[in-house]
Amino acid sequence: MDQDKTNIPANKQKPLILVTNDDGVTARGIRSLVESVRPLGEVLVVAPDAPRSAQASALTVTNPLRVKKIEEEDGLTIYQCNGTPADCVKLAINQLAPRRPDIVVSGINHGTNSSISIIYSGTMGAAIEGCVAGIPSVGFSLCSYDPRADFDSAIQYAYTITQKVLAEGLPKTVCLNVNIPEKHHHIQGIKICRQSEGYWSEEFLKRQDPSGKNYYWLSGEFINAEQMSDDTDEWALEHGYVSIVPVKVDMTAYEFIDDLNKWVTDLESKA
Amino acid sequence: MDQDKTNIPANKQKPLILVTNDDGVTARGIRSLVESVRPLGEVLVVAPDAPRSAQASALTVTNPLRVKKIEEEDGLTIYQCNGTPADCVKLAINQLAPRRPDIVVSGINHGTNSSISIIYSGTMGAAIEGCVAGIPSVGFSLCSYDPRADFDSAIQYAYTITQKVLAEGLPKTVCLNVNIPEKHHHIQGIKICRQSEGYWSEEFLKRQDPSGKNYYWLSGEFINAEQMSDDTDEWALEHGYVSIVPVKVDMTAYEFIDDLNKWVTDLESKA
Repeated sequence: MDQDKTNIPANKQKPLILVTNDDGVTARGIRSLVESVRPLGEVLVVAPDAPRSAQASALTVTNPLRVKKIEEEDGLTIYQCNGTPADCVKLAINQLAPRRPDIVVSGINHGTNSSISIIYSGTMGAAIEGCVAGIPSVGFSLCSYDPRADFDSAIQYAYTITQKVLAEGLPKTVCLNVNIPEKHHHIQGIKICRQSEGYWSEEFLKRQDPSGKNYYWLSGEFINAEQMSDDTDEWALEHGYVSIVPVKVDMTAYEFIDDLNKWVTDLESKA
Repeated sequence: MDQDKTNIPANKQKPLILVTNDDGVTARGIRSLVESVRPLGEVLVVAPDAPRSAQASALTVTNPLRVKKIEEEDGLTIYQCNGTPADCVKLAINQLAPRRPDIVVSGINHGTNSSISIIYSGTMGAAIEGCVAGIPSVGFSLCSYDPRADFDSAIQYAYTITQKVLAEGLPKTVCLNVNIPEKHHHIQGIKICRQSEGYWSEEFLKRQDPSGKNYYWLSGEFINAEQMSDDTDEWALEHGYVSIVPVKVDMTAYEFIDDLNKWVTDLESKA
């Protein structure tokens, strides 16, 4: 077995698949993901009891966490939790799972998580948490915000990709961010991509409450700062591909270390 | 001016320094940071109204944000906000700042934010948010959890580093994660580092409430997975150095793209 790969499941028992999300345990997306991966192993769901969008890797530190088993049948156990997606993964691995999960899958998020959204996404926060724990992890998102969105193509790709990751493993400290276009007959194929540079603009609606006090709603429009690059997740999705970005938890900007080293003498002389 | 650098302040007016944190607007650390950077420009503080530790890059999407100006004097304006650290930075840049800030400084966090803590830290979530907005940004943390911790050395290093970043700028999409040992006379110097690989173990205390129901408190112990490497932030801090890790918002694992491309034919044939 490759020493750099972790957790390729033993042949003796079915893989244990930990499922979570950030849209909450009752969301269509997580039910779709359970349907997708259930043929591949034993499924443990630990998911937030209500939507926790844009929670990134946030953890609950000032309140206790509570969990409640809400479903149990052959090969499927479902818990809800009052914490964030990352809390759910930690609790599942440390307290609830009957053994160490072989894979963590998160989603299927009801909306795109490409480009800079990875920084904010609770779906990816959960996948990153699985990755930090040394377990192969994948976040899945459907590129549609329509309440009646069709999850069928996402279910199919989530199955295929989960099966592949179970078979192949992933490098330590790398997880996958998968975004899937909605309409299957439009899908051109799969592109392995890098995270596009982007940001959100005009980010708030400013309003007044009945007493005349201001409040602000997060709003805004995503700006892809790399319109011309054909190797990004944004390009792939705009051109009808499923995008897969390998994501690492090491955020070091190695290419800037040499430049920064030139600062040290000056900084030390003043400190 | 270097085209790859952003926001080196114009000479005509004092730099505008945006200050935030995750310990809340009344924390000792943010007051120390204001004291530190005030000689360098005009200071705008927009910080959470209460502690928001471990909030990562979380955003508030399901509730409106409210802000309140709590102090205003010559060259210093302080707002508190009911949002996360990243919310505070967004609101400051988009709604509250009189002009575009020249730098975002976050902290001084009352506790270390090295290694994998960057994934969870609200202090760094705020710095990353400034970076995404194209503004040079730095997160500062003091390596002490003692309520009576001495912030003097952190104040001195925060001043020197902020001054340097104002003068030199930072590459687009790179910010700095600075951790500072508490005792000035023990500090050996400054090390430019990479993020150490690490994780938390035995993460929960399981307890029962008076009605016999379980609850869980996040707890646990940090494990440095790279004890032997001398180029990490953990090594630097253990050996008495101030650690500076350049952090980038592009989380792509470029080194795994070629391997993943070998999966595509197989995945597409099954989808």
